[in-house]
Parts: sequence; C-alpha cells; structure tokens
Amino acid sequence: MTERKCTVLFQPSGRRGQVEAGKTVLQAAQDLGVVLESVCGGEGACGKCKVRLEEGLFDRESLRSQKSHLSDFRPEESEAISEAERVRGYRLACLATLQGDVQIYVPEETRGKSQIIRKDARDVAIQLDPGVKTYPLRLPPPTLHESLGDFERLLRGLSACGLKDLSIAHSALQRLPDSLRAGNWEVTAFVWMDQLILDVQPGTVEDYYGVAVDIGTTTVAAYLCNLRSGQLVAADSIMNPQVIYGEDVMARITYAMMNAPEGLTRMRKAITAGLNGLIHSLTTSSHVLRDHIFEMTVVGNTAMHHIFLGINPKHLGSSPFPPAIHHSLDRKARDLGIWIHPEANVHILPVEAGFVGADNVGVLICETPYQRDEIALIIDVGTNGELVLGNRRRVASSSCATGPALEGAHLQFGMRAAPGAIERVRIDPKTFHVRYKVIGLEQWSDQVPPAQIQARGICGSGVIEAVAEMFMAGILDKTGRILETPSSPRLRNTGKGPAFVIAEAGETAIGQDITISVPDVRAVQLAKGALYSGAKIMMKTLGVERLDKVVLAGGFGSYIDPLRAMILGMFPDCNLKNVTSVGNAAGDGARIALLDRKKRAEADEIARKVEYVELTICPDFAAEFAEAMHFPHMVDEFPSLAPFLNPGD
Amino acid sequence: MTERKCTVLFQPSGRRGQVEAGKTVLQAAQDLGVVLESVCGGEGACGKCKVRLEEGLFDRESLRSQKSHLSDFRPEESEAISEAERVRGYRLACLATLQGDVQIYVPEETRGKSQIIRKDARDVAIQLDPGVKTYPLRLPPPTLHESLGDFERLLRGLSACGLKDLSIAHSALQRLPDSLRAGNWEVTAFVWMDQLILDVQPGTVEDYYGVAVDIGTTTVAAYLCNLRSGQLVAADSIMNPQVIYGEDVMARITYAMMNAPEGLTRMRKAITAGLNGLIHSLTTSSHVLRDHIFEMTVVGNTAMHHIFLGINPKHLGSSPFPPAIHHSLDRKARDLGIWIHPEANVHILPVEAGFVGADNVGVLICETPYQRDEIALIIDVGTNGELVLGNRRRVASSSCATGPALEGAHLQFGMRAAPGAIERVRIDPKTFHVRYKVIGLEQWSDQVPPAQIQARGICGSGVIEAVAEMFMAGILDKTGRILETPSSPRLRNTGKGPAFVIAEAGETAIGQDITISVPDVRAVQLAKGALYSGAKIMMKTLGVERLDKVVLAGGFGSYIDPLRAMILGMFPDCNLKNVTSVGNAAGDGARIALLDRKKRAEADEIARKVEYVELTICPDFAAEFAEAMHFPHMVDEFPSLAPFLNPGD
Repeated sequence: MTERKCTVLFQPSGRRGQVEAGKTVLQAAQDLGVVLESVCGGEGACGKCKVRLEEGLFDRESLRSQKSHLSDFRPEESEAISEAERVRGYRLACLATLQGDVQIYVPEETRGKSQIIRKDARDVAIQLDPGVKTYPLRLPPPTLHESLGDFERLLRGLSACGLKDLSIAHSALQRLPDSLRAGNWEVTAFVWMDQLILDVQPGTVEDYYGVAVDIGTTTVAAYLCNLRSGQLVAADSIMNPQVIYGEDVMARITYAMMNAPEGLTRMRKAITAGLNGLIHSLTTSSHVLRDHIFEMTVVGNTAMHHIFLGINPKHLGSSPFPPAIHHSLDRKARDLGIWIHPEANVHILPVEAGFVGADNVGVLICETPYQRDEIALIIDVGTNGELVLGNRRRVASSSCATGPALEGAHLQFGMRAAPGAIERVRIDPKTFHVRYKVIGLEQWSDQVPPAQIQARGICGSGVIEAVAEMFMAGILDKTGRILETPSSPRLRNTGKGPAFVIAEAGETAIGQDITISVPDVRAVQLAKGALYSGAKIMMKTLGVERLDKVVLAGGFGSYIDPLRAMILGMFPDCNLKNVTSVGNAAGDGARIALLDRKKRAEADEIARKVEYVELTICPDFAAEFAEAMHFPHMVDEFPSLAPFLNPGD
Repeated sequence: MTERKCTVLFQPSGRRGQVEAGKTVLQAAQDLGVVLESVCGGEGACGKCKVRLEEGLFDRESLRSQKSHLSDFRPEESEAISEAERVRGYRLACLATLQGDVQIYVPEETRGKSQIIRKDARDVAIQLDPGVKTYPLRLPPPTLHESLGDFERLLRGLSACGLKDLSIAHSALQRLPDSLRAGNWEVTAFVWMDQLILDVQPGTVEDYYGVAVDIGTTTVAAYLCNLRSGQLVAADSIMNPQVIYGEDVMARITYAMMNAPEGLTRMRKAITAGLNGLIHSLTTSSHVLRDHIFEMTVVGNTAMHHIFLGINPKHLGSSPFPPAIHHSLDRKARDLGIWIHPEANVHILPVEAGFVGADNVGVLICETPYQRDEIALIIDVGTNGELVLGNRRRVASSSCATGPALEGAHLQFGMRAAPGAIERVRIDPKTFHVRYKVIGLEQWSDQVPPAQIQARGICGSGVIEAVAEMFMAGILDKTGRILETPSSPRLRNTGKGPAFVIAEAGETAIGQDITISVPDVRAVQLAKGALYSGAKIMMKTLGVERLDKVVLAGGFGSYIDPLRAMILGMFPDCNLKNVTSVGNAAGDGARIALLDRKKRAEADEIARKVEYVELTICPDFAAEFAEAMHFPHMVDEFPSLAPFLNPGD
C-alpha cells in the first residue's frame, strides 16, 4: 500500500513539502523544519501548538463548509480554542491530522523561537551527501575458534558496505567492546568521510544532526540540520559576543595586537562560548541531544576565522595582509572547545585572501557564478562588504569596509533582525505619512492600534528602505542632508541636527521616537559608497560594461529590498528583474557544505581559482568612493529605475 | 679539513662509537648516550664525572708511559683525583679530551642513574628512518603582489623537498605566523609520516627525540632516542605502578571488573603518571626538553595495552577472550595524557591475540624469525610468558601465566634488576660455598669485604641461577624439595620450611640473610613448567621435532644465563651454543619501530600472519604441565647439557 501524500505549506515561514496523510500538523511541522511551541510534547494537553488553517491555495470551499483537509475538530481542542477561534480555523497542531493539501498559518505565539527566520529553507538544490553517514550492522559474535578483535569484527561488517581502510576515533574504540555487547552485536556506526569511525552506538540509530555556522563580525548565525533527511531543524542567530572588543574587523585585530596574548584568547573564548550557547538553544528548542551532532561547518571572514581557530590575526592587519592559511581545515570539535559530539568534525571552509574569507566562499558555492554564463555581481552585505564579479570564465572578489550600518548596528536606533525590528518602511512623498512593518507582526503599522506595534528599533533592511524612501520623498538631498523645508510633524531637531521619525514613541516598546538622523544617513552613505565604488573598480578590472545580474546577500532573518537598494545606489545599474535578494548566502553555503560533501571539494577549488582584487591599491578608488557617497541622479545613472519612479522625479 | 675520529668504548655499558678528536670524554659520553654524573655541567668544578682510562683493547703502552690517548692531566683535576687514583688512570671526563682510541671505565658512582642498564645498546641493525623528520627551510617573504597564506608558503617550501598533500597540526598552525616571522622566514618543519606537520620552529633545529616504551605487567621500561642520530640517549625502568591493583594480568582485569568504572580509570591514571615520571627522569638526566620529543612507540601485553588506552579489559578476561583491537594505532600524545610534545604521535604496536600482545610483536620485529630458515623458539619471560615458534614458513605464538617470579618479583627476597640485586650465583657442589654478583659492583662477592657488598635482594636472573645451582649442587631434588641432608651452615630452618642462604646478613644492606626458600623454588617451578610445556605443545602443533635455536628475552637490565635456564628446564633441548639471551627484546622492538617506520608496516603484517595457539584448550596441556614442574633428568632429556655437567651427575 502506497501512502498518500499531502502538500503542506506553513506561513509565514513559507516552508513547504509533501507529508504522509494521517500525520498530525505537529509532525508535519517537524518534518518540514518548522518549530512549533509544544510544551506537553504532542499530548493535546498544553494548548500551546495553536495554528490556523488558512483558506488559500488549496481548497477555498473546505473551510467554509467546515469540511477541511484536516481531521474533524475534537472536543479536547475546545479547551484551548474558543468558538470564535474555531470559526476562524484555529486548531491544535498535535491533534489535527492531514487529510489533504493545506496551508497552515503559525501565529507568533506558537512559533518555537524568539528569532524570526525568514529564509531558513531557501530553495537551493542540495544533493544530500553528508560528511558523516550511518551504517546499521548486525555482526556475528566471537567464538573460541574465531576470536577476532572487536574492531576488526566491526571492520568486516563495514567492508560489506564498501568501506575500506577505516580508522576509529579514540573514544569510540574505548566504548566499542561495551557498545557491541550492549546492542547484542547490532549497532549503528557513524563514519566520517568513509575513513574515520566517529562512534558506534548499540541498536539502530536513525536521526543524527549537523550544524552550520556563519561567524559574522556583528551577527553569528547557526543552522541545525538533520543529516539523515537534510531538513533544517532549527536556526537562530546572536550578536557576535566579540563586539565588546571592537565593532569591526580592524578594531578586533587591533585589540588582539594591543592586548597580546590575552586579547586573542578572550575573543576566542567569547565566540566559542557564544557558539556553544547558540547550539544549546538550537538543540533545546528542537529536543536534539548535543551528542547527536556529528559534524559542524563554519564560514566567516578571515579575521573571524583566525580568531575562532586561535590564530593570531595581527598579520592580517598589516601589509601585505597574508592569511595564516587558505586551505579548508578539518578539526575535532573537542579540540576547538565546541560542545557537540566530542569526536565530531568541524569543517572550516577555505579562505580566499586576507580580507575575503570563508564566508565569501560560502556565498560562492551557494550562488555558483562560476558555473554560469551571465555576468553576476554578488554583494555580501556585512560589517565587511564582500563583492564577487564574474561568470564561468573568470571570477574575482574584493572586500571593502562598510561598517555595521547595513546590518542595523551602530546606528542610534539600529538593531539586528529580531522581533520588534522595523524591517520595511514606506513614506508617502506628498503627506510624509510613514507606514512600516516590524518583525513579528504580520500587519503594517497602520493596520493595528499603535500600542500593539511595540517597535524596538530598525534592522538593516529597514534602514535601507527608510533612507531610500526619505530620498524619494525629498526629505534627503543627494548629498545626504535632511532638508528642513518639507513641513512634516515627523521632523525633529535633536542636539546632533535634524532627524526624521519613523515610529512615534506611542508605537514603540522603548517609549521614545525611533528616528533616522543625519549620522545614520552618513553611515549608510559610507557603506553604500564603498560597495558601489568597489563594484565599479571590479567591473573596470574585469572589463565588464554591464551587469547581467545582481545578487544581494547578507543578513539573517530579513531581506534587502532590491528596488530600494538600487535607489540608494548600493550597486551599478542592472535590470531590476535580475536583482535578487537571497538573505544569508554565506550561511546557506555553510549549510550546503554540511549536507553535501562534494561541495567542500568545489569550495576548495573555487577558493584557489577566484582572483583577489585589492581595492585600496587601485589608483581610482578614492575618487570613485567620494563620488559614490552621493545619492544617484536616478534615471541618468540608473535607467533600470525609470519605470519605478514618479515621472519628473 | 676533515676531523679525525677516535673510537671510544665505554665500560661497563659496552657503548661504543666514533667521536671527533678534541672532544671531552663527557661530550663523547653524551654523544654515545652514556649518562655520567655532572653536577657543574662540565666546568671541572664538581669532580663528579670521574672516569678511569683502562688499559685494554687499544694501546697497552700508553697508560704505563703516562702518554695516553687522552690529553695531559691538568692541575685542576688533582682537586678531585688523588695521586693514587691518577696512577690508576682516573680522569675528570669534562676536562680530558680525546687524542686517540680509548676504553673508558665509568665507576658506579659516576653513572648518572640509579638503574643499571646492561643492554641499552644491543646491536640490532636498525635503518634510521623515523616517523618524524625535520626539514630546514628558507622561504621568500610575502609581498603585496604575492600575498600567499603562511601555510601555503610553507607547503611550497616543503614541496621542494618532495612532500605533497600535507596537513598541519592545530597548535602548529596557531603558532605558524609568529614562527615564520621570528625566524625571519627561516624555519625547521617537523613532519610526521610525510603527511602531517607537527610543528614549525624558528631557525634550524638539529636534535629532536623519540621515546620507546614497554609496558610490562611488573616492569615498565623506557628508552629515549635521538631521532636525528638514532642514538640511545637514556634508558630507565620503573615498577608498574598498577601492581597495587593486582600482581598479574588476570588480577588487573578482575580489578577493573569489580571496580567499574573507576577501577579502569585508576589503573590508567597510574600507568600514565608512571610513564610521565619515567619520561621526566629520562629528559632531566639527559638535558632534553620534553617538548622536543616528537614521537613515542608503545608495546605491552594486551591487558596493559587496553588499560593504557582506557579500553575496558574485562572482555579479555572471559572466553573467547577477544581483544578490542588488533590493529596498530596512532594517537596524539595529548589525547593520551602523555607529557611530550602535545602534537607528538604515539604509535601503539598491533596486538596478536587476547593474550599475545604488542610486546610480543616487538619481540618478533626485533628477532625476525619470519625471515629465517632455522626453527627458533623465542621465550619472552615476564609475568605473562609469551612463546613464539617458527621460521619463514610459519610462525605461531602462545601465552602462559608464569607469575612474576622470573622477573624477581613476588619472592621473599625478590626485586627488580636494580643496584644491589643479586644477578649471578655460583654454588660449589662440594663445599656449598656461594659466590654471587650484585648489580652495581664489578667484583664477585668473594673479592670484596662483606660490608661493601650491600646486597638488597635477588632479581630474575639471580633467581634462575640460584635455583639451577642449588639443583646442581644437590641441595634441591628433582621435585623441588630442599634436601636437609647436605650439611651446610647455609641451610636455615624457617617457619615455612628450609631455606638456603645466598647472601649472609653481614653482606646485605637489609641486615638479614637473603635466602631461597621452598615457596620461592615452587614459584620458579610453576613458571618454568608453564614455559616448557607451552613450548612442547607448540612444537607438537607445528610438527617441530627439534629446535635449531632458542632466544631468551625479557627483563630489563639483567640477562638470563642460557646454561642455567636450560638446567632448570625452562625450554626443550637445544644445542647450547644456539641459545642466546637478548634482554628486553620487546623494548628493543619498540625502539626499532621508533627509529624505522618501515618496521611498523612489518609489525602490522606479522601481527596478522602469526597463528595463535590457545594452550589452555589443548587436551595435553595439564599433563605436560604437571610433568614439566620437575627438574629434568639432565642428560636423558637434555643431551646438549652433557658437556657442562660433572661426569656421573
């Protein structure tokens, strides 16, 4: 009997997949990596796993007729779900089972984590071929006439699976005699890269996990994946705890130099503890044992890479800026102080150059410009901006200091993409009326009572939109000055000059206006100017006249709006339909390398091939940069923007 | 100008080699691995390094004519050396320089260690090809136009030495940027097995070291070797600190079982601490830094092997006795808690079977019976006796419990081979007069005043000789009873029956007679009976009628006398000129594997090939063993002994 499959789409995450009919919505969510609150563990007792069956893609009739593609409403559900909620389609995910295709909305309070992840399942085709594989074995016990050693007995079993010349991790060998006998000679072997037995556990173990990590200068993101299914189980991010030692890469390098040798040790301990905390929260929320995490992949810029590995980054800070190593590395988790399975491998992706790190390699293996014909510009927006330009014939990379403004940090009301962050902004050019969206609230600000909005700050994507909209509304001039002529009650004059109010005090959780001030605009100008001029110089270097495609990467949990990024002048002109925003491509690259070992070899190869362009030694750089600080003359420089702008603007 | 070399022979160690003329005797001793007392570090101030130029092999005339092959006697020497000593050839090793071939006697008080090592430089042909090799490199510094990473720059240098696909140990990578710059781009790389860079040190480093270890049930021996020259720098042994948990292998296994899991941990910690102490004393006495030890090889029986590695040995204690692993292992020193260079490799030799361990593999690669035509029986005498029988066509091994008697332990006056131990015994069959030799004293007991002898006990070789001599003198009958008929003042009647005095109270450091009692004889009978019957069963199993060769191995610092071992009946008849005593062949095997990496592959191969004979399941074993307990009828069973015995005996 073949099982019938239902298509299930979860909102607002957009996670979608095929799940067997008869499974509960909670099971479906687990299968698709959507984390729901469930205190009682699926017993129908806690009422925390409330979800809403949405009318929508599949069958508009069903909800109205009370005959939905979910099992009938059960009396137990009414303890948690009011009649009013029931009519609107609310159900308990642990009790409602699938009987057809459904679209399920997961309300904020039901989502299992405080951090909102938008793009935790971006569709990048990954062939599941993890570094660690499991082998269930049934071995013949030893006899007096055949008293082969335990390890050799295991090898014989594994050689039947086509594995040769294996060695065994020490703790696995220490436990081997007991594991074999505890499982009555039926065990599961965990083998890394067809060469090293990491563990042998009694009985049959199915699920095992890996974690992919992107160590950014400001934000650290981690993705917990099921290595059996390839599913993303949970994702989360934290502020890099090293920020107290310096806002950007150069500040951290300087800190290590000025405080040798403890400075490096302190920063290394900070990131290690931060990662361990992040892994702890991922495993706790998803009920995964830390010891079941058998591999970790890591990307990060070269300085973060060095500090994480305990390599003094000081030589990165002085000409000619050579990294300690370009090659990818495989290290034991325990040797790095990472609290996952102690024998787990940590694969650190290769480094391209002193200022183009493993994070950019992550972007490359995710976006694969080297496999395509069209000329792509990939901009990875972070505290350090990294640029890639090229196609299958030639790929070059460069790096420029942008500061953390485009990550929402280091601004007066900046914050990372977390609940309460303003991520979208619209300004009416006639009335200067402002609408915005905060993370964690589905509606725009003008659709809910002000007291419900509870805005806490502005994240990177919100800053870009706010500044672009201010420019389009004529609140900013092309030099970045806030014009005091538009008579708007939203203009405030602070001690540091004029500021424009995005969220008024009554709409915020912080009890004061959230504004964009002149220094904020200046920080955005510096960042976008650096990216734009870097892209221009790379185009000259490679003899590229026009971009076929622009990819905006960077950030965790929030996407950059392509139109407004182009209005700001973050990158040279490109047909807007070929400008895409992909979120944290570096983190996606780490995840790809986690799930598909072949991509590691591809990463090693492309890291060697990509040409590094040192922008600071290009004679044009200073002039290009100064010019790029201004906001663009729109149609003149950016013909692609014409359809989107008011005539005559 | 070529340097003139002198041949130097040190006695009583027998260390010999070529040393440049003009070097001091102290330097020559260091070069040849002879450790002398030298408190002042070669300044001519302490007078501790007194040695004697012997007349002898080289030039009998020189000493008499006061024109020796050493530099002239210097006035400073007379502070430590009396005129009487000067005439007898005494010199200070730190002031006398070489001018020709010499034989130097090192008096007991000048020898640098409390443990006497007889066979620390047994001539086994070793081709020096260590696992770790050094590569001095001069690298071009990076420039803005060529800012290759530090590791890749190092690889480029090493690829010119023919090394490819190298990886680097983590601590070496962490220090690499600073090491390269501290050495102004001239460094020495330490590479393990042409695959892993263990360390990179600034400048040119010449000497580096390795340590070979034999973990016996009762005795643990360690050999510190210079890996550049292959020289043995120092050797020492300790009592295995695990003896407090059990005298033999089965007792230790039982202890681990009855005290799980702490029992294993306690025994592991004991041996690790013991080895660290032994390494500390070796490095201290020879002025070698622990961090300059880059490799360690380990042999030991299977139980010692398991406990050292932290593997529960309990399954070794119950049928069918499979070991956890047969394969050789390579582990990081730091992962095993061994205090040498933290990235140093520890190579553990392979295991043959549950009761034939890596120590026997050490014996095999040292004696190489598998490369020879003659049928050899190799007996490794320890707390567990191991037997090897065969030649190039077929090699078999077996194991039998002998107890520690033949190592000088567990007897009333037993001790290990250390200063004060009686190692040789002669009994006049007519007068019952006893002469003996103690370790640390060149003369026999009847050549020095009794008060100078300071005997402290009897070591393994002394026990074998005492019992054999007692039998030959008619003090013992063939069942092992002490006959009270021979009227000798040396017979004592103790509470536990009669005992025979070897050293009288006035000759000892312990203030009481050192005797051989009936229980002592019984322990020797059990041990030799187990060895003899084991050898007989193996001969039957392999269809061997007569032995071409017998090799007596085992012990540290003292040799078993072949004649007296045969008189005791430790092994079946063999032409006595083909019976040799080789000392600690297992330790020599560890040393060979340390110095010649090709022997490791040979060890892996022979460990797989050798057939294991389980003696206890042979139906004849009990009967053979009972019979072998008796002392032999000499000429009947042992025609080879005829020429050595008194006619009519």
